Amino acid sequence: MAAMSKTTLTISSKNYSSWSLRGWLLCKMAGLAFAEKPLPSSDPSTRAELLLLSPSFLVPCLTHQGIAIWDTLAIAEYLHELRPEAGLLPAGRAARAHCRAICGEMHSGFGNLRSALPMNLKAHHAGFKVWAGAQADIDRVLAIWRDCLATYKGPYLFGELSMADAMYAPVCTRFLTYDVTLDAAASAYCRRIMALPFMLEWAAAAQAESEEVEELDVEF
Amino acid sequence: MAAMSKTTLTISSKNYSSWSLRGWLLCKMAGLAFAEKPLPSSDPSTRAELLLLSPSFLVPCLTHQGIAIWDTLAIAEYLHELRPEAGLLPAGRAARAHCRAICGEMHSGFGNLRSALPMNLKAHHAGFKVWAGAQADIDRVLAIWRDCLATYKGPYLFGELSMADAMYAPVCTRFLTYDVTLDAAASAYCRRIMALPFMLEWAAAAQAESEEVEELDVEF
Repeated sequence: MAAMSKTTLTISSKNYSSWSLRGWLLCKMAGLAFAEKPLPSSDPSTRAELLLLSPSFLVPCLTHQGIAIWDTLAIAEYLHELRPEAGLLPAGRAARAHCRAICGEMHSGFGNLRSALPMNLKAHHAGFKVWAGAQADIDRVLAIWRDCLATYKGPYLFGELSMADAMYAPVCTRFLTYDVTLDAAASAYCRRIMALPFMLEWAAAAQAESEEVEELDVEF
Repeated sequence: MAAMSKTTLTISSKNYSSWSLRGWLLCKMAGLAFAEKPLPSSDPSTRAELLLLSPSFLVPCLTHQGIAIWDTLAIAEYLHELRPEAGLLPAGRAARAHCRAICGEMHSGFGNLRSALPMNLKAHHAGFKVWAGAQADIDRVLAIWRDCLATYKGPYLFGELSMADAMYAPVCTRFLTYDVTLDAAASAYCRRIMALPFMLEWAAAAQAESEEVEELDVEF
C-alpha cells in the first residue's frame, strides 16, 4: 500500500500557473508534506491549462491517502478538515462565511483580470495600460481587500494567514508584474504576501524555470 | 434586532438565473426557512448577472443572522455547518472531497456550456446544434455523472441528495431545453432531478414569470 500513502500535488508552470500556486500555498500553509508532481510543459494539457482552456481537474490535483482532489477550493476544504489547527479558515462563523465568499468569488470570477493580466512572475511591465474591463476586476479586488483589512485589522485578509491569502496571492504577483496603481494599504499587503517564505521559495523556482514553456503561443 | 434575524435569499430570474436556482435549492435542501428577495428585472445588475457579466456577489446572496454570504459554494458550506443533518455533504471523507471537487469544477468551469446553452426553462429547442466546445463540456459533465452514479450507486450523485445535485441541477434543465443526446443513465438522472418537489416548484414559478426579462438584449 506504499503507493496509496504517497502524498503528491500535481502542478504545472511555477511562472505562469496561478492555480498551481494557490494549491501549493494551501498545502504549505496546512503543513502537509508532499511531493510536487510537475505536469511536463510538453504535455498538451499544460498548454491548455495555461491558456485557461482546460477543465480544472488537471492542476492542481492533490493525492493524499489514495484520495485525488482536483479543485482548488475542494483541496482547501480537505486540508482544513485534515489540519484544522492550521487556521485555513477563520474561527468565527461570520468570518468563516466571509472568507469562503471571497474565496468563491476569486474561484469563479475575475475573468478579465485573468485573461488580460496573466500571472508571469519573471516579467515586469512598467506603465502597463489596463483596459476598463480588467480595471473593474482590479477595483473589486481592492474593495475586497480594503473591507477585510479594515474588519479584521490585518496583517492578512482575516488577521492570521488563511485560505483567502492563498487564493489572492497570484493577484499580488500580477499587480507587481503589471505595475498596477495601488493605494498604500493594498501595496503594503502585496509586499507582505510576496515576502512570505513560501512565496519567496515559489518565486525563486519560477525565476529558475526553463524558458521552454515560453514558446507557448499564448492567445490573450 | 428584528432586521438582524430575518433570513433572506436574493435571487433574480427563475427562468434564466442558474446561480439563483443553485442557491435556492441549497437553502431548501437544508430545510432553511427564508424569504425570497427578488432582484427586479429592471435593475441593471439583473441584466449584468444574466449576461454573466456581474461579479458573483449579487446573486445568490443569503442573509442569515446578520451575516451576508454571496457565493454559491460559500452558501453551501455555511448551510452544511448550520444543518449538518441535512447531508449537503456526504459523510465519508473521500466522498466529501469528491463531492467538493465536482462542485468546484461546476463553480469555476464549463464556460462554453454556460454561454452556448444558457438556462431557459420556458424554452425547448428540438434538434439544437451543439458546437464542439460546448460538447466537450457536456461530455465532461456526463463523465462526472457516470463516475458518481457508478461509485455511489445512485439515485443521486452521492447516493442521497447532496450539494452536488444542486450544483448540477441547472445543467439538467439545459440538457432538456436544448434536446441534448443523453445515455439512459444520464437521462434518468435528469428526469429524477426535474421530478424533485423543489424543482417542480421552481419550474412552475419560472413558467409563470413575467416576460419583461425577455427584453434583455442577450448577446450569446
